[in-house]
Amino acid sequence: MATAAGTPSTSALETLCLNTIRGLTIDATEKANSGHPGLPLGAAAMGYALWTRHLRHNPKNPAWFNRDRFVLSAGHGSMLLYSLLYLTGYELPLEQIKLFRQLHSMTPGHPENHITPGVEMATGPLGQGISTSVGMAIAERHLANRYNRPGHEIIDHFTFGICSDGDLMEGISAEASSLAGHLKLGKIVFLYDDNHVSLDGPTKMAFTEDVGKRYQAYGWHVQHVDGMDVEAVDQAIIAGKAEKERPSLICCRTIIGYGSPHKAGTSKAHGSPLGPEEAKLTKEALGIPLEPTFYVDSSALDFYRQAVPRGEKLEADWNDRLAGYASAFPGEAGELKRWIAGEPGEEWVAELPKFAEKVATRQASAAAINAVAAKLPNFIGGSADLSESTKTMQEGLGDFEPGSPTGKNIWFGVREHGMLAAVNGMNLHGGVRGYGGTFLVFSDYCRGSIRLSALMGTPSIFVFTHDSIGMGEDGPTHQPVEHVMSLRAMPNMNVMRPCDGNETSACWKVALQTRKNPCSLVLSRQGLPALSPEFVGAHPAERGAYVLAPADGDDACCLVATGSEVQVAVGARLLLQAAGVPTRVVSMPSWFLFEAQEESYRAAVLPRGLATVSVEAGATLGWDRYAQAHVGVDRFGLSAPGELAMRELGITAEHVAEVARELLAR
Amino acid sequence: MATAAGTPSTSALETLCLNTIRGLTIDATEKANSGHPGLPLGAAAMGYALWTRHLRHNPKNPAWFNRDRFVLSAGHGSMLLYSLLYLTGYELPLEQIKLFRQLHSMTPGHPENHITPGVEMATGPLGQGISTSVGMAIAERHLANRYNRPGHEIIDHFTFGICSDGDLMEGISAEASSLAGHLKLGKIVFLYDDNHVSLDGPTKMAFTEDVGKRYQAYGWHVQHVDGMDVEAVDQAIIAGKAEKERPSLICCRTIIGYGSPHKAGTSKAHGSPLGPEEAKLTKEALGIPLEPTFYVDSSALDFYRQAVPRGEKLEADWNDRLAGYASAFPGEAGELKRWIAGEPGEEWVAELPKFAEKVATRQASAAAINAVAAKLPNFIGGSADLSESTKTMQEGLGDFEPGSPTGKNIWFGVREHGMLAAVNGMNLHGGVRGYGGTFLVFSDYCRGSIRLSALMGTPSIFVFTHDSIGMGEDGPTHQPVEHVMSLRAMPNMNVMRPCDGNETSACWKVALQTRKNPCSLVLSRQGLPALSPEFVGAHPAERGAYVLAPADGDDACCLVATGSEVQVAVGARLLLQAAGVPTRVVSMPSWFLFEAQEESYRAAVLPRGLATVSVEAGATLGWDRYAQAHVGVDRFGLSAPGELAMRELGITAEHVAEVARELLAR
Repeated sequence: MATAAGTPSTSALETLCLNTIRGLTIDATEKANSGHPGLPLGAAAMGYALWTRHLRHNPKNPAWFNRDRFVLSAGHGSMLLYSLLYLTGYELPLEQIKLFRQLHSMTPGHPENHITPGVEMATGPLGQGISTSVGMAIAERHLANRYNRPGHEIIDHFTFGICSDGDLMEGISAEASSLAGHLKLGKIVFLYDDNHVSLDGPTKMAFTEDVGKRYQAYGWHVQHVDGMDVEAVDQAIIAGKAEKERPSLICCRTIIGYGSPHKAGTSKAHGSPLGPEEAKLTKEALGIPLEPTFYVDSSALDFYRQAVPRGEKLEADWNDRLAGYASAFPGEAGELKRWIAGEPGEEWVAELPKFAEKVATRQASAAAINAVAAKLPNFIGGSADLSESTKTMQEGLGDFEPGSPTGKNIWFGVREHGMLAAVNGMNLHGGVRGYGGTFLVFSDYCRGSIRLSALMGTPSIFVFTHDSIGMGEDGPTHQPVEHVMSLRAMPNMNVMRPCDGNETSACWKVALQTRKNPCSLVLSRQGLPALSPEFVGAHPAERGAYVLAPADGDDACCLVATGSEVQVAVGARLLLQAAGVPTRVVSMPSWFLFEAQEESYRAAVLPRGLATVSVEAGATLGWDRYAQAHVGVDRFGLSAPGELAMRELGITAEHVAEVARELLAR
Repeated sequence: MATAAGTPSTSALETLCLNTIRGLTIDATEKANSGHPGLPLGAAAMGYALWTRHLRHNPKNPAWFNRDRFVLSAGHGSMLLYSLLYLTGYELPLEQIKLFRQLHSMTPGHPENHITPGVEMATGPLGQGISTSVGMAIAERHLANRYNRPGHEIIDHFTFGICSDGDLMEGISAEASSLAGHLKLGKIVFLYDDNHVSLDGPTKMAFTEDVGKRYQAYGWHVQHVDGMDVEAVDQAIIAGKAEKERPSLICCRTIIGYGSPHKAGTSKAHGSPLGPEEAKLTKEALGIPLEPTFYVDSSALDFYRQAVPRGEKLEADWNDRLAGYASAFPGEAGELKRWIAGEPGEEWVAELPKFAEKVATRQASAAAINAVAAKLPNFIGGSADLSESTKTMQEGLGDFEPGSPTGKNIWFGVREHGMLAAVNGMNLHGGVRGYGGTFLVFSDYCRGSIRLSALMGTPSIFVFTHDSIGMGEDGPTHQPVEHVMSLRAMPNMNVMRPCDGNETSACWKVALQTRKNPCSLVLSRQGLPALSPEFVGAHPAERGAYVLAPADGDDACCLVATGSEVQVAVGARLLLQAAGVPTRVVSMPSWFLFEAQEESYRAAVLPRGLATVSVEAGATLGWDRYAQAHVGVDRFGLSAPGELAMRELGITAEHVAEVARELLAR
């Protein structure tokens, strides 16, 4: 069988090793009657070269901190990854390979890090893998810069990956790759499975750009090799690792569905199993036994399993080095270990500010960030070219740039989607806590990454400012309407929209203490009066909702509001009480937190049967859960000073009081 | 004052003309106390060269069909566009310039095509403009290919634009630009305002890639010129227009905030007014009178207003050519005129299929598309590398590729965001009806373009398939959960989720008849039984919701369901009725359509007070509007065969019946 460019220099054992991946792939997709065999068949040599000759990992401890990261950006080729995990000795038995894509198996259709040991992240949505990897490399560099000392290279690993043409067609990868080139993240080495085929057919139907030249334009080190040739791939990885200044893209020309007599090199091998007859022919062509299925040659397995002792030694050596480092630099080592464990202490809580004055919650957020920044050395992040507006900068703590090794502020550029993927990568990497900010309306641009953080349970912190029509003159393209509710609809996402400075401190406290889910902080552009209790290390907002102002007398009405509309509800309460309607105001910064409270608390805050009006300057869809009448914005906004826009669309105390009276009159 | 590269060759009149734009910009942003003066000050020469020497338009008829399109992708520089619109004689009086960014003015903070005559599209979210322009150029080429005849170049215009560094950092522009290069859309000519400054500071903080080289890699024609020099820009535009094979990017080196002694060339000139003192100094430096504000020199205005007679002649000449064409090719001319008017007739309605059999709604959609495709020659579209899955292909009607001039199928590649921007561009251009398809879960990737279509009222058609956990083995990265509700939360968006083939025909009928809003068709991967009435040119689904199965007896319970869950509700109805609970099933493919019905109809379909359970395999958030109990999916899905995933998460008739019984027992 011909390779893309000549005969590969593979030994018999090597062929067995490659064919083991291929045989498992064929059988797993056939048995599941679903899946993508083409990539693992074509990219086996790439995976083999990387995993047996370069990847420094410990299959017996997938959490070993200084491991090289490996990200299969082309997640549809999951059988390549599952094969390598099983073969190199991770806790993924062959039985699980046989359950590929079945209910509750450890081998879902696309890789999921929360399910399968050794999977670094969930991939499948194209472009996320390579983009998230950029964040992993940022975390590695930050930690290396902060903790390494001469003779003590404690943090020192590569971020490897395999990506596909689809990954590189996606805009998110363009954003992240441009950023990686700018940041000179030389420890990224990605192999591009350049098989000239996508699901719709040959890539030449839609993708004729010069990918290598594009990556050179980004500042990457680019090589072109025969991806079917283990030695060629190996040499290219060596060169890629040796290149310290530039991230590396190794364009590997491969044959999708390699070995399949009738489907290799075509889209027929991409997204569906080969089919029983073609599977048989492919095995015959490759020299793989037809029976038993899921055949693993013992010599191949033995070879792959050398990863186990090698990995144990790698980790043991590192532990020795860490011990030496701890002797020489006990303070640094202690700090590093706490951050690796995800336990950076609680000292910073006392630093969070309290507020007595009117302040925009984005400004309160800036105060909170800057109050804790010095106590949280590995809390790093930035904004998508809106740092002056999102107020996400850590003042005086430097820029994260190639020439400034210890800076904490990352300048992401106008790259929202790539930014939040990178933030996810930082938080997946661990040892750091990453955040990113943009306008709430542009959460639309990064929803792919936001969702993935929620699915993976990654504790990313997203700072979304300019959170309603109240942001004013920039107009409807910049005024979020449906965004808060759309984010609430996402499973596992804690959306927090504080009403003032003190609630903002509380929300930052919650966000920084969160371990298993992302948080979206939704903040105002405009100043908001101090209405809630002072933040004194704790605040009732941490329960998601609470009675901010009780009714004077037996409750006749409840106004439940969030963010900048709490002040509107407070104003309406005065009007209603003046008219003899005892009214409570509930501030509800987080549905997510509130819905985690016990029923008795929830019923006490929002009693069933009490006439309730929701007040939020956004889509009313969803508020029926808590209120029988609504004041909101179910249309696009308009360009005008923020207060006028609010008034024009009925976000006023008078209108809220009117809606409440109508509700009571029903 | 120095320019970026030497002294510009500007005559006195030219200087007056440039300074008129600059003076209006300074005064408008000062008066509004908000806005972005920097771009218009720096890019005035670019706008002047393009608008006075190249742009073929008719200010007295912004709808003239064969006009060159101009898109200000960098929408924050709106005062450049408003200045040019006013100066060249559009229906945008100077009084409106004075109301920049004020409530109900014609000069919102960012351009909005639905508000201001002459504005082709809403811009502001970066990257959308240049990406949408690609769709405009696709529409132009399709129409030219279909209608032009030798000697009758009826459709023949350029798509021009100005973009910023932010536009080019965004992934969406990378996607669309790669596609434009592939398609050899040589009639795109974009000027890149390369001012080296973004909001956060110098672009070198985050954006050091070689933009020109990247665009060359995409297959674009790239030039670098002094953007302050009218003659240089002019020559580059001439060369860009002459290049027929490749889209053109003209990198114009400019000085942001040109003229401002203390802010030019810095981010201080970017996102805020100059301030009264600096505004004064800038005017003095440029030689603009301090008083009156909003000063327009009459000789400059006279010069700009030559656009009026020139435009009237351009359109009159075109009308003559169209008349000649209509004589020679009456059939083609009639068809073209109907499509330009947005009235392609109704013949196709009778072609929409009816179904008696089980069919996946994506498959029914394919049948609908292919039934009408021949009758709708300018109905064009495609998929983001998922055509086999989304079933969006028009069989036998050819590919839209550089070498195949009349094909109707566009291969967008794995570029969801760029695809839907291009679809918006096609529909904004007019004469064609554009659609694009991907998996519903990847609507996250293109939400920026989806929202813009809703804001602009563009009748784009989005085909979103694989619409729930029922899509199966691909797992949670590919299984939408919150997406249907998130799309419903968007103003002006008609989300339609049909339950079977006949409802699918009805939804396509509605989508194709829609003129003022986008439609999202949400379709199943899996087969669904025929439950609804036959489509016979009309269908009750067109009202958004209807009683699919009445209760046998006085209603005790209502099950309201959408899409693939209608069959589940029908099954539950049988169980409930067998247990003595007369139950109706309401199929509700579109909240949007239902909520536009009169109150009496709505009350008849979903009576207030009737115990109602919603059944939809997605987020239950929102369903409180119509039901008191819910069967849905408020978590991420799982990788398993679709039916098993559905069962595992409780989407079964038994579970629905149980929830209904619990509701009735409350």
